[in-house]
Amino acid sequence: MTSNTNTLEREKGILIVLSGPSGVGKGTVCTSLRKSSPELIYSVSATTRTPRQGEVDGVNYFFKSHEQFKSMIENDDMLEWAEYVGNFYGTPRQFVEETLRSGKDVILEIEVQGALKVKQKFPEGVFIFLLPPSLNELENRIVSRGTETDESIRSRMSVAVEEMRLMEHYDYAIVNDHVETAGNKIKSILEAEHCKRERVFPKLMHWIGEVK
Amino acid sequence: MTSNTNTLEREKGILIVLSGPSGVGKGTVCTSLRKSSPELIYSVSATTRTPRQGEVDGVNYFFKSHEQFKSMIENDDMLEWAEYVGNFYGTPRQFVEETLRSGKDVILEIEVQGALKVKQKFPEGVFIFLLPPSLNELENRIVSRGTETDESIRSRMSVAVEEMRLMEHYDYAIVNDHVETAGNKIKSILEAEHCKRERVFPKLMHWIGEVK
Repeated sequence: MTSNTNTLEREKGILIVLSGPSGVGKGTVCTSLRKSSPELIYSVSATTRTPRQGEVDGVNYFFKSHEQFKSMIENDDMLEWAEYVGNFYGTPRQFVEETLRSGKDVILEIEVQGALKVKQKFPEGVFIFLLPPSLNELENRIVSRGTETDESIRSRMSVAVEEMRLMEHYDYAIVNDHVETAGNKIKSILEAEHCKRERVFPKLMHWIGEVK
Repeated sequence: MTSNTNTLEREKGILIVLSGPSGVGKGTVCTSLRKSSPELIYSVSATTRTPRQGEVDGVNYFFKSHEQFKSMIENDDMLEWAEYVGNFYGTPRQFVEETLRSGKDVILEIEVQGALKVKQKFPEGVFIFLLPPSLNELENRIVSRGTETDESIRSRMSVAVEEMRLMEHYDYAIVNDHVETAGNKIKSILEAEHCKRERVFPKLMHWIGEVK
């Protein structure tokens, strides 16, 4: 009975996957959230690229050789991965699962296609789509990043609109009109998800069992 | 296009149904929540009993004659109703629906069986079950109310345990270990429900439509 009680007290954490089109401000929201909720663990990606100065293995990235990375893919140890300019980037399953098992929540910030791959392997995650306040505002944000040509802006807007259609596969959508407000909404979603009946019900059945 | 935009801006409210076994503290949590969230509208019940001094029609209750009440039942104007010591009590559908349509959220505090009746007629509501921190604590709360005999306490505890099994029909469960904490969890659930993809998706499709 004791071990059962311990299991119930140490409830599993939740994986929050934060995504949205390029330019919507995922990184800014995530950074703000990590400051205000230090108990939330940020998922560390794996990469085959060389560490830059000051980057720490297991903190900024898990640095892997190409061979190690490929064997992780083969062993289904990556929740998602992609190749970019000759290097591999991915989300190691082990780090996420061990952190969740220790009772801590994990946040993974990732682009739209990557999030959908994670959903296939980890459907119990909570998938949040970040939206711009309007399409005009998204265009402003892309333009203000600087050196884009008119054509590349049009192309990025068109990709963003296509990505927004994929919102139908997500659980929640948050408008990023203000970074802190968006962060608070993510916290509310996390708190609400912890109150879902499916999570609390086993604990209750345990109590009722004790009474008999 | 203008009328469509207006419709989207005025999003429908959410009905929160707060329930739980007798003695768990539904009323206290609700009172605390109404103080801290005055924008949340409290569902007003209808009754056939005589108004007590100071009670205002449409504020404390909608006071109805037996004939009026029966005709409301026949017209399916009650989300639930029950008879108690010769009088009828119920939840008028019209008040709830009109308030939701105006964009405001409504909270209905109700016992467990009544909540399940509401769910049959209003499945789009968000059903929250309030739990005691432990069964011992629930017994303490029932005992501290005063004049109960040992037998009636045993009987109430047994009813409470049976009611707790009905939690499986609810969306969320909150442990009432602290009134303000429980109230804050309800606020988080409400905020999260407003971020559900199904609610935001039509707005997004509207944007994308505008772009084409």
